[in-house]
Amino acid sequence: MTIDELETPAVLVDLDVMERNLARLASYAKKHRLTLRPHTKTHKIPELAKRQIDSGAKGVTVAKPGEARVMAEGGLGDIMIAYPLVTPPKARAAAELARDRAICVSLDSAEALEALSQAAVAAGSRIGVLVEIDVGFHRCGVGSPEQALSLARHAMGLKGLEFRGLMFYPGHLGKPPGEQTAGIADVSRCLAAHYETFQKAQVEIPVMSGGSTATAYRSHEFSGVNEIRPGMYLFNDRNLLSLGVCSPEDCALHVMVSVVSTAVPGRTIVDGGSKTFSSDRSKGEKVTYGLIREDSHTDFIALSEEHGHLDTTHSDRKFQIGERLHILPNHVCVTVNMHDQIYGVRGNTVEKVWQVKARGKVQ
Amino acid sequence: MTIDELETPAVLVDLDVMERNLARLASYAKKHRLTLRPHTKTHKIPELAKRQIDSGAKGVTVAKPGEARVMAEGGLGDIMIAYPLVTPPKARAAAELARDRAICVSLDSAEALEALSQAAVAAGSRIGVLVEIDVGFHRCGVGSPEQALSLARHAMGLKGLEFRGLMFYPGHLGKPPGEQTAGIADVSRCLAAHYETFQKAQVEIPVMSGGSTATAYRSHEFSGVNEIRPGMYLFNDRNLLSLGVCSPEDCALHVMVSVVSTAVPGRTIVDGGSKTFSSDRSKGEKVTYGLIREDSHTDFIALSEEHGHLDTTHSDRKFQIGERLHILPNHVCVTVNMHDQIYGVRGNTVEKVWQVKARGKVQ
Repeated sequence: MTIDELETPAVLVDLDVMERNLARLASYAKKHRLTLRPHTKTHKIPELAKRQIDSGAKGVTVAKPGEARVMAEGGLGDIMIAYPLVTPPKARAAAELARDRAICVSLDSAEALEALSQAAVAAGSRIGVLVEIDVGFHRCGVGSPEQALSLARHAMGLKGLEFRGLMFYPGHLGKPPGEQTAGIADVSRCLAAHYETFQKAQVEIPVMSGGSTATAYRSHEFSGVNEIRPGMYLFNDRNLLSLGVCSPEDCALHVMVSVVSTAVPGRTIVDGGSKTFSSDRSKGEKVTYGLIREDSHTDFIALSEEHGHLDTTHSDRKFQIGERLHILPNHVCVTVNMHDQIYGVRGNTVEKVWQVKARGKVQ
Repeated sequence: MTIDELETPAVLVDLDVMERNLARLASYAKKHRLTLRPHTKTHKIPELAKRQIDSGAKGVTVAKPGEARVMAEGGLGDIMIAYPLVTPPKARAAAELARDRAICVSLDSAEALEALSQAAVAAGSRIGVLVEIDVGFHRCGVGSPEQALSLARHAMGLKGLEFRGLMFYPGHLGKPPGEQTAGIADVSRCLAAHYETFQKAQVEIPVMSGGSTATAYRSHEFSGVNEIRPGMYLFNDRNLLSLGVCSPEDCALHVMVSVVSTAVPGRTIVDGGSKTFSSDRSKGEKVTYGLIREDSHTDFIALSEEHGHLDTTHSDRKFQIGERLHILPNHVCVTVNMHDQIYGVRGNTVEKVWQVKARGKVQ
């Protein structure tokens, strides 16, 4: 099958670029002795998770027990659920998976610890626990080394659980440079304080899990980190491009759309809107919804649900009804999540049709 | 089953409120002799489309042939595809459906007309055509009565097609009052110009299809309109509430989430983010992502993919881990589209589990 036979909108992954991205980060992680545990939220496809393992990752990361189940069914055996599971059904789902594979869960409350311990005891399994710490993003995570130590000790005293270490998400470092109020050095100081407190208490921190794609190639600068969980690095996207994290030739994923209307002067309408791309905005001052590979002078200025509004007033290009365009989405994780399947292509050939199997999970 | 047995995040529809909304708009349409053809993009559920028909709608509207197919399989027999179908496979899909039910398609180009005619001839079917006109939103639609007449005549000259009239989408009237540059009177003048041009040419306009939920109860003020296609009216949402189109007790749909973290001071984190609500922003100056039914002093200030960030600094309320909250989403259509199923509830009882059957369609 060639891409010309696909109906639009269609999410296309350039396999050559993706394979280069997979190899590059794996090589970086190996060089710096960092355990690689990619977050599969970006693709939600077991086959791609396995390719990440084959290229050197130790395990994978998911956000929900239902996603973990899909990955487990796809052959993945070492899964971190990087989300606090506070309800008994979710804790039970994790505990059941933990019977015959390595499952660990991150959390920041006694309530989550107790729910997980009860579920593990009932399932006769053992779940690894990472205590989440807040290093400045102010989303989840306890706010002091003492609180982290207290939760670690709580975990160590509960049946069915095994304290594995600490985890954090440095989301605040993924902002444009002008909006950043802290840097990697601040995070490193925060981690050092945790190591000091735990050392005094003679509690080991086997795993210090951090990282994201925005800081992936600077992970070695976070002193004390020994595991990273980047998600987007295999595809990259427009926001990472804007941050200078990747270059245009590193962007593996584009959305192929068709021009459906050119009736309004100065506008070209394509068949992808917020239900194709998501409504995630670009970072920075001028808000647009993706980059059009075929014409950098045309701006993707607005989204309806099924219409993408392109402003052609600064371009000499004449768009034709039915013509296909390739758009680099702002945020690749939420774009893939809109689709039931995406395509792996090499040149004009569609080599892979991947079902986005772990999308839409509640539990 | 009660709502307590549902895992979160879960989309809950209050059936009493929805039924009231369905009856109210049907009664309004009847009073003003307007044909009601609701846009099913809001729910993508055949059973709800049938309830719209049962409450007085003549037919339904969809955005894609794949959605039309799902609705047809669900028993709907009169479907408008309000989207220009410019590719042969999409035109073919519409033409095949038109073999044994009433299908009409809106479009604004000769290319779309010809693709549709060829498909209808090949399928041995007949497709209704509505020429889309631009009344000020500047998305799709031809820009003058002469262009509309020219396309109408083109349609009349093509085999397999039947010219049915004109359609428009007044999306620009759904903006907050301060941002509006035109009103219903401007649209009425535009429609009058079309009627005049067509009358001179002795071409009848059987259907003038317009309307949206934002202006639904003012549809009679659009002089010349005889059909309306509101989508959101059965649920309503936060943006319609902000526009004054509905009141809080008219909002039928909320997303039930659980509190998963309270570790960061001034923050409460719930288990719904951009992959639950979509990242559609609120209209107006202060951007937030939904209204929390349990506490109007807590703001939904940010979205991660699976985390909703609530700012509790202006509230005295103490949120508990595991506690459930009900959030009115900004934009109901894109929220429902994130989910594989939603629930119809009456009081605490889950009466209906609806599969969002038409989501994720490409063709």
